[in-house]
Amino acid sequence: MKKLLDNIQAPGDVKKLNTHELKQLCDEIRSFLVENVSSTGGHLASNLGAVELTVALHKVFDFPSDTLIFDVGHQSYVHKILTGRRDKFGSLRRFGGISGFPKRSESIYDAFDTGHSSTSVSAALVMARARDLEGGKSNIIALFGDGALTGGEIYEAFNDAGHTKTPLILILNDNAMSISKNVGAVSKHLRNIRINRLYFLSKRRVSNFLDRIPVAGRLVRNAIERIKTVVRRRVLPTTLFEDMGFKYIGPINGHDLSSLTVCLEYAKTEKKPVLLHVKTVKGKGYAPAEKHPECFHGVGKFDPQTGEIADSGESYSSRFGEKLTDIASMNKKVAAITCAMPEGTGLVGFSKKFRERFFDVGIAEQHGVTFAAGMAAAGYIPVIPLYSTFLQRAYDQALHDVCLQNLHVVFPVDRAGLVGADGETHQGVYDLSYLSGMPNMTVLSPSSFEQLDDMLEYAINAHSGPIAIRYPRGGEQSPFEYGGFRINQPYIRKTGHDATIIASGRMVIRAAETENILKCHGISVEIVELPTVHPLNEAAVIAAAMKTGRVVTIEDNIRSGGFGEHIAAILLENGVKCSFKAFGFPLTPIVHGTVSELDKKYGMDAETISAAIIKMMKDQQYGKNQT
Amino acid sequence: MKKLLDNIQAPGDVKKLNTHELKQLCDEIRSFLVENVSSTGGHLASNLGAVELTVALHKVFDFPSDTLIFDVGHQSYVHKILTGRRDKFGSLRRFGGISGFPKRSESIYDAFDTGHSSTSVSAALVMARARDLEGGKSNIIALFGDGALTGGEIYEAFNDAGHTKTPLILILNDNAMSISKNVGAVSKHLRNIRINRLYFLSKRRVSNFLDRIPVAGRLVRNAIERIKTVVRRRVLPTTLFEDMGFKYIGPINGHDLSSLTVCLEYAKTEKKPVLLHVKTVKGKGYAPAEKHPECFHGVGKFDPQTGEIADSGESYSSRFGEKLTDIASMNKKVAAITCAMPEGTGLVGFSKKFRERFFDVGIAEQHGVTFAAGMAAAGYIPVIPLYSTFLQRAYDQALHDVCLQNLHVVFPVDRAGLVGADGETHQGVYDLSYLSGMPNMTVLSPSSFEQLDDMLEYAINAHSGPIAIRYPRGGEQSPFEYGGFRINQPYIRKTGHDATIIASGRMVIRAAETENILKCHGISVEIVELPTVHPLNEAAVIAAAMKTGRVVTIEDNIRSGGFGEHIAAILLENGVKCSFKAFGFPLTPIVHGTVSELDKKYGMDAETISAAIIKMMKDQQYGKNQT
Repeated sequence: MKKLLDNIQAPGDVKKLNTHELKQLCDEIRSFLVENVSSTGGHLASNLGAVELTVALHKVFDFPSDTLIFDVGHQSYVHKILTGRRDKFGSLRRFGGISGFPKRSESIYDAFDTGHSSTSVSAALVMARARDLEGGKSNIIALFGDGALTGGEIYEAFNDAGHTKTPLILILNDNAMSISKNVGAVSKHLRNIRINRLYFLSKRRVSNFLDRIPVAGRLVRNAIERIKTVVRRRVLPTTLFEDMGFKYIGPINGHDLSSLTVCLEYAKTEKKPVLLHVKTVKGKGYAPAEKHPECFHGVGKFDPQTGEIADSGESYSSRFGEKLTDIASMNKKVAAITCAMPEGTGLVGFSKKFRERFFDVGIAEQHGVTFAAGMAAAGYIPVIPLYSTFLQRAYDQALHDVCLQNLHVVFPVDRAGLVGADGETHQGVYDLSYLSGMPNMTVLSPSSFEQLDDMLEYAINAHSGPIAIRYPRGGEQSPFEYGGFRINQPYIRKTGHDATIIASGRMVIRAAETENILKCHGISVEIVELPTVHPLNEAAVIAAAMKTGRVVTIEDNIRSGGFGEHIAAILLENGVKCSFKAFGFPLTPIVHGTVSELDKKYGMDAETISAAIIKMMKDQQYGKNQT
Repeated sequence: MKKLLDNIQAPGDVKKLNTHELKQLCDEIRSFLVENVSSTGGHLASNLGAVELTVALHKVFDFPSDTLIFDVGHQSYVHKILTGRRDKFGSLRRFGGISGFPKRSESIYDAFDTGHSSTSVSAALVMARARDLEGGKSNIIALFGDGALTGGEIYEAFNDAGHTKTPLILILNDNAMSISKNVGAVSKHLRNIRINRLYFLSKRRVSNFLDRIPVAGRLVRNAIERIKTVVRRRVLPTTLFEDMGFKYIGPINGHDLSSLTVCLEYAKTEKKPVLLHVKTVKGKGYAPAEKHPECFHGVGKFDPQTGEIADSGESYSSRFGEKLTDIASMNKKVAAITCAMPEGTGLVGFSKKFRERFFDVGIAEQHGVTFAAGMAAAGYIPVIPLYSTFLQRAYDQALHDVCLQNLHVVFPVDRAGLVGADGETHQGVYDLSYLSGMPNMTVLSPSSFEQLDDMLEYAINAHSGPIAIRYPRGGEQSPFEYGGFRINQPYIRKTGHDATIIASGRMVIRAAETENILKCHGISVEIVELPTVHPLNEAAVIAAAMKTGRVVTIEDNIRSGGFGEHIAAILLENGVKCSFKAFGFPLTPIVHGTVSELDKKYGMDAETISAAIIKMMKDQQYGKNQT
């Protein structure tokens, strides 16, 4: 059978299709998604759930004249497929390929870059206001999941939007899951709505209606009136959204194109902010993903036939979870908090074993961190693993609630450093800089699973005050023999006399590779691992630098404000004469690709570091460094 | 007349008073507040509004067995007065004196340190959960204003709390103001509640009830039943809070001790989270503050008789507002956003002149910054002045929404550096460090009003991409002649040959003082002002250091991650041989006091800096720096 999808070059092509064809298109998109994501990896389940909704949006609206903003953005695959990026889909999330998130730089159809949760309503509201200032008439749409409703920023935007007369279309894609099962009062409220109200549009009621809507999406007056009658008939009062000032429509069956299309057409006619509540099934149409949506949220390669996911092996995340469970068996004061990521952060085992000491607060990093502060103030030892990129969202809570009160909160910072395929919005390369700007904070960085174990043991049972342990995505470990962990202790992994590399965490591997390369050049490199990256052991840093007189630091973090610069200040203030170079990521958005591709792109690979050390030795030989 | 207040040494003393006496106590507290705050300065209006509520809390509950958490915390004065700190009130907000915010280190009655908005429910919820884990029976209370309802974190906590069975008492102190007039849909919702419901407890209904409650606060069964009947009678369904899973009680007249006491007694009997909606008048009982609560929110010294507030003179904030208004007259694309601080940030003039381009989004920094990003994406030039300490709350939005997309958003960072009397939670000493860890960000720091004018002109009309201008509280200016502003340009304010001081912003004044002191010692100091503090002009920094071979940097920011460390890295990497010392605030909470007291305490005064330079010269003379 000829594929309809092959003829979709731009959204205009979607508009030409009739109801039957649109349905076929949806089927084709599903197959396309499963086939591609099984080889590239990516966010599958949420995109499968949003197929009809995205197709209906492109049927009803005129992008980019109209504006569509995706919350989080990982559910934008179907949109990408329909907006001229189908052919590039094999490069999804790959180095030089298309991003797994909306990118203004990638397409005129991407209106706002997203990656983190709960920002879409803010962006959509202001675009609606900007439109009003210009006297424009376009439609502005924010599409967000029920998970976004656990994040505080969206309520800030609701509060700002709900009392205005600005036309604005908010679409809640409610699959009753954020990443895992959704939690909280709002989730319960949505469940009650779903139980108490029938789907307010049945297929029968809108039968034949759809095809009578003109292709251009402009409705004649009587068609509008008919829609209004159909839609209004079942709108019942009283939801959270109505309390906040929105016109509420729903719940709508998010896999019924006819209902979706009619409701979207209706939303266009409203002169104030509208909230459409669309109910979808995460993973819809692909049995393995429907059964285990949490496994197919962000997934690696898998077998499209069986749904079997390639084993990614032991990771720092899983190791953390195991060790935490061990420690918590002995120490009854240990509690764990997650912000909607029990799987991702390795907490599933803990959550089953210590149900009463486990708290899932939703995608709510601010609340989660203040909650941790309160728990510490109440005499418990809270452990709150967060991806580095999401901890950013609780910067103030970490500083204001935890650090200023010097509370004993343990922050395992997962996905610290490069994260790879998720790209710009998810790179965890900022945390060491911002954490080392917080009073009372200690930061550790393990280079092996054993070191992580010991650090966690130390952080929970021996430390007091706030402490972070930053570890990378995946499970790459140091090649050196492990020699235990003590706070503030430097570890000389290799002795040498020409130059000293100071590294920590994942970058110990780069240090080892560099040493290997330089050995062939007859250059003897000393490798000093600093598992305690903040605050620094000044004496150790000075001694390391004085031994060889040439210092290179490598960190899986931006250079600005990282430990390299802290070390530079220590050395300079103490009058240590040495050649010096700090390797860290530059202050530019770090794109997507594999970790090794990115290390190379940003000059963090062993070849580049080796070349710098060789140059350092030559420069000094010829007196260039003797200003 | 003998004062009742003189006999209140601890909360237990409040419990002994009858209704009549409690009323007299409230009057005495009001006089005490006005008298004291008129000389110390502080948060007056909100405390005047919370007198009866705080007294009623101490009448009904047993602190510290029960737990009281103040949101924001500046409304804790009455609580401080009742908990043994009355005698110290003359030292409020003064160096070495009591804090203007709750401090666990100050009193066992202060359960959790606060300063920023919307954290109290998170902290209270977790304390309630911790109590449940221990099998305890105490009451946990969070007290927050309606302004806190514009901040997203509180909804994250509501979402987490609303579906639980954990007993928890949330008190909304609704004065229809946050700092200025409150905005938004929730505020409107509260207004509707207030209009649509009568005060559900009249004085008559609870007459004589209060005095029959036993002193210990424990009720016999029939008293409880009677309360329940009285209270339940008027509880109507359907509010935002009920949608979120709370038992809602209100609105209650927050100046009627009887109603308050009965409702608080009732709240104690509930087995799930309760929300008490208390209506109060900001500034209550002091005419000037009732009339202009926004002027008496955070106030300096004033005349207690007339309410006349001492003129604080022109400030960077007011100058910013004037200049912005000028620029916006010429450039129609300029828009201004405030997070509930039009007065504090100098935007009142702009808001009146350009009403359509002015947006007050509430105490909602996250939304505000994403909103600014969206506005820039829509082709406007958004200017969003925020106090440094509040910009922290939008760290992720600044990084994720603005900087990664390289959007042209102007961030005037008000109250950057030391803020003085507000202390720990409000010091603006972190922003330079975290902003210089964001891709594409530029940071400027003016030392005079003229420089601020030129920077703002540059930032709005000449720059592209994100840019911050950090300026201090107050209006202290550089003593040097102003010579214009160009981006990246260093300015030599004084030539010298023994040592170079690199400074910016307020610290140019300290540099001048230091130069003055050292002149008397026969030491010739060069002063280089760097108005562009990030990214640094490397060549200028190197040239400055090479000229004298001794470099001291001074910044109104923490040392960690500040420009001193960035400079150290530049110098060391470029092989510049020099003595070096970076002056910045240490990584410890910076307490309250005047700016000059604090500079001295933390070694940032001219004497300490001078001594360091003298030592630097001696050390080098004797070869100590020749490691």
